[in-house]
Amino acid sequence: MVRSAASLIRSRGVSATSLSDVLADSGAPRGSIYHHFPDGKAQLAEDAIRWTSERLLAHLRTGTPSGPSEVLGRFIDVWRRTVVASAGSAGCVVAGVAIDTGPGEKDLMEVVRATFGSWVAVLAEQLEVAGVPSRRATPIALATLAAMEGALILCRAEGNVRPLDAVAEELMRLLPLERPSRRKRPVHSS
Amino acid sequence: MVRSAASLIRSRGVSATSLSDVLADSGAPRGSIYHHFPDGKAQLAEDAIRWTSERLLAHLRTGTPSGPSEVLGRFIDVWRRTVVASAGSAGCVVAGVAIDTGPGEKDLMEVVRATFGSWVAVLAEQLEVAGVPSRRATPIALATLAAMEGALILCRAEGNVRPLDAVAEELMRLLPLERPSRRKRPVHSS
Repeated sequence: MVRSAASLIRSRGVSATSLSDVLADSGAPRGSIYHHFPDGKAQLAEDAIRWTSERLLAHLRTGTPSGPSEVLGRFIDVWRRTVVASAGSAGCVVAGVAIDTGPGEKDLMEVVRATFGSWVAVLAEQLEVAGVPSRRATPIALATLAAMEGALILCRAEGNVRPLDAVAEELMRLLPLERPSRRKRPVHSS
Repeated sequence: MVRSAASLIRSRGVSATSLSDVLADSGAPRGSIYHHFPDGKAQLAEDAIRWTSERLLAHLRTGTPSGPSEVLGRFIDVWRRTVVASAGSAGCVVAGVAIDTGPGEKDLMEVVRATFGSWVAVLAEQLEVAGVPSRRATPIALATLAAMEGALILCRAEGNVRPLDAVAEELMRLLPLERPSRRKRPVHSS
């Protein structure tokens, strides 16, 4: 049910996802949703966020990237796969909840905030381990998350992954050069 | 009514914005919404997008920016003002429609696509006029739009404008240096 909720929220947001839709998509018996999610849709949204976030973090923590561009590339790849698998139509569960959650729903928005924060923290940490200077790691991680969230919206409008690929190329330019090649540049060119 | 619709969609998405909400917010008489928007909510969403887009494009076309960073800064400022005015809670009308529109609503999604496209085209053109190489202008414009759309989501989660400011600083790094200052750098530092 949580997977169904995540998938539906990703495609159409929270407001347009009803508990009945989740039941129909998951094939779970009607009573079970009230048993597992007594607090209803907000709880389902919260669990869908946690489920998504755990998968993202687990993916980021697999293997040892060889350098900053591989760290960034692996993060971007998670978003790219979502877009490709849905022909552009899937968004981010967490963004979908953020956009559809009113300022009054403080608990749910706090889950959104903490989730985004954990993604930026893990990405920044990995960038730093891979050699990005500490003061640059967090801003680059934040810009990458923002750009990916936005790219998903542009991909949804275009119906393909091209906007994300173009954005990804720009993000790579924010990284310091991995093999400093300044000495190769002619010093007396000007 | 269109302004009310834009404002409501910006804060809570299309699905959660009812025609009754728009009537209540605008103070317009009930009959008028069916008179002006016989096609209902999709038409209201479309008009809210057009209204928003015209204002953005008019703002971008005011004055003559002195260089690429002023071009980018002026675009970013439009988004920044939206966030500041709403203490983080307002999003982008066009993104709100994109996320809440199903793949079946082809006409509305085409309006979204064309609107994003026109923003990227105007920004890229202005960057080029300000001196950004032609092959760099469109990717930078696209990355800037994506990053701003995503930054609005992060600002909504945080309840302040800090994520947008951090992202804006990164976007500025994508621009070529306006006054090459390489000579100031000590050449023999390593």
